[in-house]
Amino acid sequence: MDAKTRIELSLERAMAQIETPKAPPKLAAAMRYAVFPGGARVRPKLCLAVASACGAEDSTAAAAAASIELLHCASLVHDDLPCFDDAATRRGKPSVHSAFGEPLAVLTGDALIVLAFEALAMSLASMPQRLPALLTTLSRSVGMPLGIVAGQGWESEPHADLVAYQRAKTGSLFVAATMAGAAAAGADPESWRLLGERIGEAYQIADDICDVAYSEAELGKPVGQDAALGRPNAAAQLGIGGAVSLLKNLVEQAGESIPVCPGADALRSLVMLETLMVLPKELLQRAA
Amino acid sequence: MDAKTRIELSLERAMAQIETPKAPPKLAAAMRYAVFPGGARVRPKLCLAVASACGAEDSTAAAAAASIELLHCASLVHDDLPCFDDAATRRGKPSVHSAFGEPLAVLTGDALIVLAFEALAMSLASMPQRLPALLTTLSRSVGMPLGIVAGQGWESEPHADLVAYQRAKTGSLFVAATMAGAAAAGADPESWRLLGERIGEAYQIADDICDVAYSEAELGKPVGQDAALGRPNAAAQLGIGGAVSLLKNLVEQAGESIPVCPGADALRSLVMLETLMVLPKELLQRAA
Repeated sequence: MDAKTRIELSLERAMAQIETPKAPPKLAAAMRYAVFPGGARVRPKLCLAVASACGAEDSTAAAAAASIELLHCASLVHDDLPCFDDAATRRGKPSVHSAFGEPLAVLTGDALIVLAFEALAMSLASMPQRLPALLTTLSRSVGMPLGIVAGQGWESEPHADLVAYQRAKTGSLFVAATMAGAAAAGADPESWRLLGERIGEAYQIADDICDVAYSEAELGKPVGQDAALGRPNAAAQLGIGGAVSLLKNLVEQAGESIPVCPGADALRSLVMLETLMVLPKELLQRAA
Repeated sequence: MDAKTRIELSLERAMAQIETPKAPPKLAAAMRYAVFPGGARVRPKLCLAVASACGAEDSTAAAAAASIELLHCASLVHDDLPCFDDAATRRGKPSVHSAFGEPLAVLTGDALIVLAFEALAMSLASMPQRLPALLTTLSRSVGMPLGIVAGQGWESEPHADLVAYQRAKTGSLFVAATMAGAAAAGADPESWRLLGERIGEAYQIADDICDVAYSEAELGKPVGQDAALGRPNAAAQLGIGGAVSLLKNLVEQAGESIPVCPGADALRSLVMLETLMVLPKELLQRAA
């Protein structure tokens, strides 16, 4: 079974927990709307790829991957809220609060966070010894003081630590993906932190480039958000060509950081392919 | 050490995870503001009391109790948001969004949910075999399809199932308190469900009475909310005297539902005392 199929099945397994006749129907529908159809599923793919590179293909890795994607979807729903980015569109369709209203969007984010932890606990009921490390990895990547929520929190500070901000907001879930993939395979998570950090930085740059270079129709969500909201943007600072060079450099560093493991070469190729394919071909050629 | 002290210490231990120099200061402050000083800490006290009645006084029960209180505080912060109850006050002071703004209030709720799970995972790192049951109990009590978030979700439905609504919104965390207390002590959680349900119903009635009979100054939060928001209220339907009688009846049923265990009698007295002391004396005497 390919990674994409394993991820979708694992997400469906989690959603089956909440889609019962006793659930409030609109909230259940809003949760499904927030999760399916997904974006590139980059983070859960990375989690599975690391687990596989460490020699594991079992259901623990798929459960961890699904939990990471649920947390990612939750963060997108809350990020889009009127009191944050006030984004009308996401993944080429109306954002959750545009489609279902603000109350259900707040609840959708909350419920997806809870479901991420519940799904993991249920999947690991028969091997609880791996649960503390996985739960700690995931909760740190989304919570305070260094996770996604902390990153969003820096936006309310008059003097934000920009490195901390971007690491927390974009990087932390990539770190969770590589570390959870290793933990699911019984490998040492800590030695996989650097790979997650490098890929996270690369994606931040790629996101900055897209925000400057794409149209809303091409990207499926509002563009020019960084300029509109006064946020730092690498492509605005370095030019698109400079940002693309930086991105390629980071992807190479990511590849070099992969620890010795059975599937290191295959993982290195995958990381380069997945990270660079975010950008349109003409941009990559321009920086070649 | 008494229950109140154990709960506060366990909450402080959890907060120490997030209050570091690297955390965004306002979000950290908003989280502390949401948790301290607490209300009656009814749910964590119930959790500790059940664990103690089952013969356990260890740190697992205190960790579970703190997690339940963190989830309760998170639900209050999100409930008070402008898109839900739009409550300006809570526990006798400005609500979190009134004091810190809406973005930080959304993030505070999110971060408290995550912290509840992280704190539990860290406390049980050395005895992970109890983690799946505790995590599942807690996540079900707050998430979809039957937890607090689901209860809030029913408010967006044109035809709400009122029993499901109140069970989910008020009852589920009491059920989590009794079941998690039992699970922390290594007892069978399921036989403690009925006690949690009965106490949850009793608190819903007590809350209805307070909403009708108290002033905002006495209660420390807005009153008359049910009438203003068109929600059902037992005191409005039965009169205050009728609602107090119903409450006393439910508390007796709760006492009778306590399973055979070493500390059953002490627990029965505590449940009666804690549940009825919510009301002012004159109301209890009126219904005597």
